[in-house]
Amino acid sequence: MRIFETKTAPNARRVRMFLAEKQLLDSVEFVQVDIQTGENLSADYRKRNVTTKIPVMELEDGTCIGESVAICRYFEALYPTPSLMGQTPLAQATIEMWQRRAEFHLLLPVGMCFQHTTGYFKDRMTPVPAYGEVCGKQALEFMATLNDHLAASQYLAGDTFSIADITALCALDFARVVKLRPAPELTHLLRWHAEVSARPSAKV
Amino acid sequence: MRIFETKTAPNARRVRMFLAEKQLLDSVEFVQVDIQTGENLSADYRKRNVTTKIPVMELEDGTCIGESVAICRYFEALYPTPSLMGQTPLAQATIEMWQRRAEFHLLLPVGMCFQHTTGYFKDRMTPVPAYGEVCGKQALEFMATLNDHLAASQYLAGDTFSIADITALCALDFARVVKLRPAPELTHLLRWHAEVSARPSAKV
Repeated sequence: MRIFETKTAPNARRVRMFLAEKQLLDSVEFVQVDIQTGENLSADYRKRNVTTKIPVMELEDGTCIGESVAICRYFEALYPTPSLMGQTPLAQATIEMWQRRAEFHLLLPVGMCFQHTTGYFKDRMTPVPAYGEVCGKQALEFMATLNDHLAASQYLAGDTFSIADITALCALDFARVVKLRPAPELTHLLRWHAEVSARPSAKV
Repeated sequence: MRIFETKTAPNARRVRMFLAEKQLLDSVEFVQVDIQTGENLSADYRKRNVTTKIPVMELEDGTCIGESVAICRYFEALYPTPSLMGQTPLAQATIEMWQRRAEFHLLLPVGMCFQHTTGYFKDRMTPVPAYGEVCGKQALEFMATLNDHLAASQYLAGDTFSIADITALCALDFARVVKLRPAPELTHLLRWHAEVSARPSAKV
């Protein structure tokens, strides 16, 4: 089984961290793809993932699964313990809710801020700097929302570490690239950040 | 159990269609929220959903679940038949992949095109029309990608109807609001659209 990824990209880190939590890192071969030079835009890569995004997982029979959360879902279903996506219907829904909130209100705006203010991918998309600025503000606003939530919750989805924390951590760490950092008064968010950053899986 | 929604919004339709496929529509009370006037921005609504988005589900004990896909996940876990999110690990991953592709490459750009070109929510966000235009083009490009895929696949995730089709249908139908329609030569996409539109759940 192979995963095509770009080591420094936040979505790649999400999947590695998920696999590390399940002690599955060694069961996968990681193949590096240079997205900066557009290696992912080749016809060969598109056969594996029509959206050209990284990461994409290739099973032994050649079947490919794109989308970080879909890759995680595959491993969660095959290896349910430790659970990172919830066991009861309510836990599954709560984790999915917070995973998606972290994705749509933090990771996505941070990524859009990066793409639209730096022009990193301007050879293949049209950067709109004004939109990048709006996204940066949205990301900072959601950091405050998360801080309020974490005042009464150990992790994003309650008292158990989950994929929601992985998404939020990868988003928050990547946000530093565009100089978006939690304000020092967001003490609950910073408490959570220190706690999840100390997990061995955060270093892979 | 109550779901707070705005009947005309694509995310609300996703959840209703999902429930209709599972014959569960009658087990839920729907409460209309006027997002145009900002009823969802009230302190009362924020207690149910901190992101202020619709829909949000409220269980009998007051627990609230936001995010359309998280609401669907709850019902999928409670009532697995008919399955709309997959049963085997590979089916679950494949459906999640296509659901997310439909979401990030069609529903989201269509929504952003709507918000940024019409200024519908300009009382609460900063429209960037140039970004809206970029998103409109992205949505049209993904319609062509979907068309190629549907040449060899009955539904988005293979030969079984799933939540991925629901997301893509709701996105495609909402796209008409901003005059984004599949080109007539996208015959596979149009074949699929006719087929999924004929399901009783598409009318709820």
